Amino acid sequence: MPAKNKPVLAVDIGGTKIMTALFSADGKMETKDVRPTLAADGVEAVVERLYLAVQDIFKKNDVTPSQLQAISIACAGGIDTEEGIVVTPSPSLPDWSGLPLADIIKEKTGVITYVLNDASAAALAEQRYGAGKGVKNLVLITLGTGIGGGIIIDDKLYLGADGGAGELGHMTVESDGLRCGCGNTGCLEMYASGRAVARDAVARMRKGEKSSLAENIEKLAAEMVGVAAKKGDKLARDVIDRAAFYLGVGLVNIVNIFNPQMIVIGGGLSGLGEMLIAPGRKMVAERTFSINSRNVKIVKARLGNEAGVYGAAAFAFDKRRIV
Amino acid sequence: MPAKNKPVLAVDIGGTKIMTALFSADGKMETKDVRPTLAADGVEAVVERLYLAVQDIFKKNDVTPSQLQAISIACAGGIDTEEGIVVTPSPSLPDWSGLPLADIIKEKTGVITYVLNDASAAALAEQRYGAGKGVKNLVLITLGTGIGGGIIIDDKLYLGADGGAGELGHMTVESDGLRCGCGNTGCLEMYASGRAVARDAVARMRKGEKSSLAENIEKLAAEMVGVAAKKGDKLARDVIDRAAFYLGVGLVNIVNIFNPQMIVIGGGLSGLGEMLIAPGRKMVAERTFSINSRNVKIVKARLGNEAGVYGAAAFAFDKRRIV
Repeated sequence: MPAKNKPVLAVDIGGTKIMTALFSADGKMETKDVRPTLAADGVEAVVERLYLAVQDIFKKNDVTPSQLQAISIACAGGIDTEEGIVVTPSPSLPDWSGLPLADIIKEKTGVITYVLNDASAAALAEQRYGAGKGVKNLVLITLGTGIGGGIIIDDKLYLGADGGAGELGHMTVESDGLRCGCGNTGCLEMYASGRAVARDAVARMRKGEKSSLAENIEKLAAEMVGVAAKKGDKLARDVIDRAAFYLGVGLVNIVNIFNPQMIVIGGGLSGLGEMLIAPGRKMVAERTFSINSRNVKIVKARLGNEAGVYGAAAFAFDKRRIV
Repeated sequence: MPAKNKPVLAVDIGGTKIMTALFSADGKMETKDVRPTLAADGVEAVVERLYLAVQDIFKKNDVTPSQLQAISIACAGGIDTEEGIVVTPSPSLPDWSGLPLADIIKEKTGVITYVLNDASAAALAEQRYGAGKGVKNLVLITLGTGIGGGIIIDDKLYLGADGGAGELGHMTVESDGLRCGCGNTGCLEMYASGRAVARDAVARMRKGEKSSLAENIEKLAAEMVGVAAKKGDKLARDVIDRAAFYLGVGLVNIVNIFNPQMIVIGGGLSGLGEMLIAPGRKMVAERTFSINSRNVKIVKARLGNEAGVYGAAAFAFDKRRIV
């Protein structure tokens, strides 16, 4: 019998923002706080900022550390969840390599602290609170600036032997393809991420193709490409179609490898909805084994940018239960 | 508490042979029988041949059906293990689609019968009896005529939501690549399987490249290419190196996705040993996230062509425990 739950303080720390949220003992979000990461200030400044956010939540909600079950942190990068250490830092938090984040926060607050990868947290969040409620086997793929992933098996988070499982953005889909920052070649992330969408649009305009995006070429973001595609811009639509094709390749691989009940697609790019997802759903139906795909549901994530804190909270309520 | 074990009759049925083996209650193989499948005779004839093999084992070992815990069958193809049905038949048993194999054998013998995919069985076998003894998270990839896979998570077989998980040969590694018989494009199986090795060698000779293999061009098998490569044949070596590169791509994907403790490489082609495996091991070290690869072991399978029956037996001794 698991012990009765107490409130959990959940944190999601990424390259641009720190979100902190207090969850009641029955798993409901009570309050949240968002502030910028300002990663360029360096690891010590960011950790201090995170600590201040935690203290603010304590003060504003009249909570003392001793009342908490845990502080649970979703963090970008390859995380040794057992030890609470950032092993492989995210490109957005480059100087975090080897950071013993759990110990640091525990020492500052006196509260037991967990750290897990943010995409893994998002998978758990969608399975407990979002698109995959009640689904036992689920894979989440997040299409943000980069591509992350999280795996739920038998109702539990699958982190692999060392905490690094779920790097779905770094499966090779073009063995002789573009070189990825991770050290691999032809990673899915190089073709279906927000960064890839913006890069492709810029490259085609620089080659002379016309587009309504030309005026924004110096500061082009994937979201702008999506908006232009929806408005009928030919170049933008081609670029999104190409990303959608590669997403489809990734989905085919996930279905053939995992035979999941559900694939949840999150991250900023998933806001494009069916324009991005429908071609992949069709590819899965046409290209995978029927036993693998006949029951799979491929859906959009529901929790948006709160997925990290929801997942971190669920992980603590689960008592860090993993498979 | 699981009930005390009784003997298990394990079967491995593939495109070329039916292996039947009796395992004692303490999990030891007592006797085995191998006979040809002769798949071209059609499903009824093959099922009858399987049944005769089972009866022979009964007779020769003085075993009655009532003394058995189960008959457990490892079978090529996409298997609904819950129902014991062949859903997606293997190309080597093309007319088995929809075959309720478990019910048929149970009806003929009176013994409860399980059916699972042969590569899944091989993964369980290596983890219980072979190269991965005591390893809790393990992925097996079999390089035979085609490429199969099996996944062990938390000491249990992972079959996915419908029994189809582990189709590692059918992850896309060339999104615009060769068309695969499965309906997908650029599958790993098209580049790193026995069939791919033989096909590549033949194609290069037909283009006029010299090789010691030329005299066997009409009946070339991957094993011959391996032997020639070891003897220094340039073309054969190039072909094996190319397969090894693609195997490496597959291993990189498996490590980034699963972060397993171990990858076991089985199937006929794995007999080539380090010539085939070493380049992939190097690629994993160079191209994956360090948290994913720092502890992974990549090794050759140990059980050879007995992996199917060992795994089928282990599955029954496990009481079909899956994750």
